[in-house]
Amino acid sequence: MSFADSLFDAVKRKNSCLCVGLDPRPENFPKEFSRDAEGIVGFNKEVIGLVKGLVSIVKPQSAFYEAFGPRGATAFQETVAYAKKNGLLVLVDAKRGDIGSTAKAYAKAFFETYGVDALTVSPYLGLDGVKPFLEYCGEDKGVFILVKTSNPSSSDLQDLESQGRKVYEIMGSLVNEWGKEYVGESCFSSVGAVVGATYPKEAEALRKIMPANFFLVPGLGAQGGTAEDVKPAFNRGGTGAIVNSSRGITQCFSPDDSEWRVKVVEAAKKSVKDLNGMRFG
Amino acid sequence: MSFADSLFDAVKRKNSCLCVGLDPRPENFPKEFSRDAEGIVGFNKEVIGLVKGLVSIVKPQSAFYEAFGPRGATAFQETVAYAKKNGLLVLVDAKRGDIGSTAKAYAKAFFETYGVDALTVSPYLGLDGVKPFLEYCGEDKGVFILVKTSNPSSSDLQDLESQGRKVYEIMGSLVNEWGKEYVGESCFSSVGAVVGATYPKEAEALRKIMPANFFLVPGLGAQGGTAEDVKPAFNRGGTGAIVNSSRGITQCFSPDDSEWRVKVVEAAKKSVKDLNGMRFG
Repeated sequence: MSFADSLFDAVKRKNSCLCVGLDPRPENFPKEFSRDAEGIVGFNKEVIGLVKGLVSIVKPQSAFYEAFGPRGATAFQETVAYAKKNGLLVLVDAKRGDIGSTAKAYAKAFFETYGVDALTVSPYLGLDGVKPFLEYCGEDKGVFILVKTSNPSSSDLQDLESQGRKVYEIMGSLVNEWGKEYVGESCFSSVGAVVGATYPKEAEALRKIMPANFFLVPGLGAQGGTAEDVKPAFNRGGTGAIVNSSRGITQCFSPDDSEWRVKVVEAAKKSVKDLNGMRFG
Repeated sequence: MSFADSLFDAVKRKNSCLCVGLDPRPENFPKEFSRDAEGIVGFNKEVIGLVKGLVSIVKPQSAFYEAFGPRGATAFQETVAYAKKNGLLVLVDAKRGDIGSTAKAYAKAFFETYGVDALTVSPYLGLDGVKPFLEYCGEDKGVFILVKTSNPSSSDLQDLESQGRKVYEIMGSLVNEWGKEYVGESCFSSVGAVVGATYPKEAEALRKIMPANFFLVPGLGAQGGTAEDVKPAFNRGGTGAIVNSSRGITQCFSPDDSEWRVKVVEAAKKSVKDLNGMRFG
């Protein structure tokens, strides 16, 4: 089954478009976990166990594992394996992008060595930096290409105007074009786009440009996006997007709070409920 | 000493602007090395030993290590340490770029955990995705921001025209601006730019836009760039750029060639000579 179809089905089955970000910041872990790579695995496993019934997909952010060197790479590998064993799809946020022969090595690293289901990709190098990742979309893998990111200075490059259109709109058209070959039975392509929760107007324009592309919407919670802000990322049926929350779920407590497990579950449940209210309201 | 000053001095002292790319493709290693992470370290150490008198800087490409998972991360770490022990500067080609809090984790990973001297950075997210890397440029670290990359479809995004200028020219102006704070005694900034050898005309325009920024010029050899093609990346004094060759040095032989060491040294010497002829000719 294609990645887009797997994701579509999982979102429907679990009635949840929430994606939980696994961005380990050990200094914020509950005090029973060590502040190292082993603590990362222990905490992630607990979080996965707590949220696996509530979400379809988790998103480890590669940077927070890389910061711990080779042991961080092992922690990343174990996290991916544990999430998959628990029936979750795994989307890695790594924003890779390079010339063709190098992009091929990145695709091999994530899709083969680590066995993730999907990856975020940066489009600064254009099609031949993206193509090696697309080739895996014909199998069961997916990509989310950066189009309009959630950060304040995303405007520096992405909002430049060219031939009457913004760069993010031009990128949206390219992503739509690149994804056409990889549309599954769900009518969605395994080539998706990253569209930040902090830019609802831009998301509205991009939804029209990319009707058949899944959106990964980061920026809910800590970055300021609300459930209402992400509405334009969805189509009228309330499908076509997943919404990521990291700090809002995995850091919603203080390190010495013994009730942290309950709080994680409550935060995830609340996000799912808010998002469903918005999607189907 | 700032990164730019260290690099400037090393290029002058060794009379060499060549950067050797350490992009391990084990299938092409001499037959005495194993086709795994251990083979990578063994081969890299030999190459470093062979070229250390001929170059100032080496550039491991992160993707080729990541493809080997956690053991690849260890191979990367050992390669960086060995190059530094041998007096070389280490520039990692990783093209990272993310929102501020995540970019900070990447900067920590490369500059602190692995201890590299410089890193390539992707600018798709704008200033706040670059800033956490810039902060290390006030110490002894450097960055090279993607401006005009060497691959054929770099035109997809980088050649779009906005307000009468190409996107790569606009990026060049931003890099120049971002780098002003980090200009050292050499009159070069530790904030540099990636400008592909395959686009000499674009390099000429960018040299004027970024007079005080070091250029990292990839694309010599296997990608089609010649010593003459990279001339516009240098200023009139023949300084301000380093030129990378990967496959042309580390894959200039067949795996069963017992004379491979001699060929690596000859290939590096020839590149240095050709580049010096062009720089000072």
